[in-house]
Amino acid sequence: MQLGRVVGTVVSTVKEPRMRELKLQVVRLLDEQGRATGGYTVAVDAVGAGHGDVVLFAAGSSARQTELTDGKPTDATIMAIVDSWDVEGKQVWAAHEETP
Amino acid sequence: MQLGRVVGTVVSTVKEPRMRELKLQVVRLLDEQGRATGGYTVAVDAVGAGHGDVVLFAAGSSARQTELTDGKPTDATIMAIVDSWDVEGKQVWAAHEETP
Amino acid sequence: MQLGRVVGTVVSTVKEPRMRELKLQVVRLLDEQGRATGGYTVAVDAVGAGHGDVVLFAAGSSARQTELTDGKPTDATIMAIVDSWDVEGKQVWAAHEETP
Amino acid sequence: MQLGRVVGTVVSTVKEPRMRELKLQVVRLLDEQGRATGGYTVAVDAVGAGHGDVVLFAAGSSARQTELTDGKPTDATIMAIVDSWDVEGKQVWAAHEETP
Amino acid sequence: MQLGRVVGTVVSTVKEPRMRELKLQVVRLLDEQGRATGGYTVAVDAVGAGHGDVVLFAAGSSARQTELTDGKPTDATIMAIVDSWDVEGKQVWAAHEETP
Repeated sequence: MQLGRVVGTVVSTVKEPRMRELKLQVVRLLDEQGRATGGYTVAVDAVGAGHGDVVLFAAGSSARQTELTDGKPTDATIMAIVDSWDVEGKQVWAAHEETP
Repeated sequence: MQLGRVVGTVVSTVKEPRMRELKLQVVRLLDEQGRATGGYTVAVDAVGAGHGDVVLFAAGSSARQTELTDGKPTDATIMAIVDSWDVEGKQVWAAHEETP
Repeated sequence: MQLGRVVGTVVSTVKEPRMRELKLQVVRLLDEQGRATGGYTVAVDAVGAGHGDVVLFAAGSSARQTELTDGKPTDATIMAIVDSWDVEGKQVWAAHEETP
Repeated sequence: MQLGRVVGTVVSTVKEPRMRELKLQVVRLLDEQGRATGGYTVAVDAVGAGHGDVVLFAAGSSARQTELTDGKPTDATIMAIVDSWDVEGKQVWAAHEETP
Repeated sequence: MQLGRVVGTVVSTVKEPRMRELKLQVVRLLDEQGRATGGYTVAVDAVGAGHGDVVLFAAGSSARQTELTDGKPTDATIMAIVDSWDVEGKQVWAAHEETP
């Protein structure tokens, strides 16, 4: 999985029938230090993530292994909202320490 | 999923039988700000996208999760036409604001 | 799918039994303007492509969705020979206009 | 598979139900000489790897081919703890020679 | 598939039970001219490749389409030992011409 931050939403009225009702989030990719890498994905949200949340998403066929996305043409699904992570014994980022 | 713009079409008469009748679109990849990244894909169109449309496509096995592409050798399928998207509270692009 | 040109062949006598009888083509990857990207793949040929042909190949599990490659360890399969393609209303390349 | 070193942990309380009880490790990618490449993945740990361990992880659908991860939305799973590896007849790295 | 050369071995005693008995080879990736690209993979060997052999490996779910790797968490499997290959009518490399 990769870390990312939810930064936006994609609006689409003409889409594959199986994609109806699914929320499409723009997720900016983060590196292990929490910096934007320049990459992004548009992911289906399976956990109710909101704008600004740091999340984990699964790519490829693993993106379909949730109740919401089973059998649907999504190749990226947010499957966890991140509270915090650490690297080499040091906390890199924590949701509760972020200034809103 | 990645954002892209339909910029062309691939014509092929000799193809795998399962690919017959499927329209092959050249899709130029866009970054989260709507700029071309330099990459592209050739995707099967499952939603009737036209030249110039901004679309979302699914890659890998997820490209086969539509009625049209089930069991077919496609690794990229357009599964949504994009109306608009926003990043950090600002609209990046909207179909109805684009000068034809 | 990505566009490529068949530029060579790989010869192998010791291979996984399921790969026997399959022709392995060296395919040079092309960008949307028909220029070599520097990348390549070795692909199974499911459509009888010959040296110099411009082709489309499917990657990943989609490479197994042909009668020839079903259940076989190939991650790239040529599934179409390209006649021509256009980008932004202009023909980029056409087989019949190429000098042999 | 790619080589990596476990350098941290991701904490998440809101996650896809199927991901509950799974430990999420931050794995820094290594090249064949054992140097960090700058990339990382967040992987499910299927073998009890600890902080500092050098590991192998499988990506994509192969990440679901363990008893622990079957049917779960993970696209990266640690499936081996590395004791040592060699390149061109020379040992690159060995766990027992590392200064704690 | 990609071309590579077997340059080493990974030793692991703690691994996913399904990976037991499988040989893990370090494979240095080659470009179409036989030069090292700087990338590598650790692959399961399904064909008895030895040190120095030039091989083809399949990635992703295709790496599991051999009798040896079916249902196992491998995302890269050597499925052919290369005798030779040519590009644009010229032989790039041949096993029997290589100085031991």
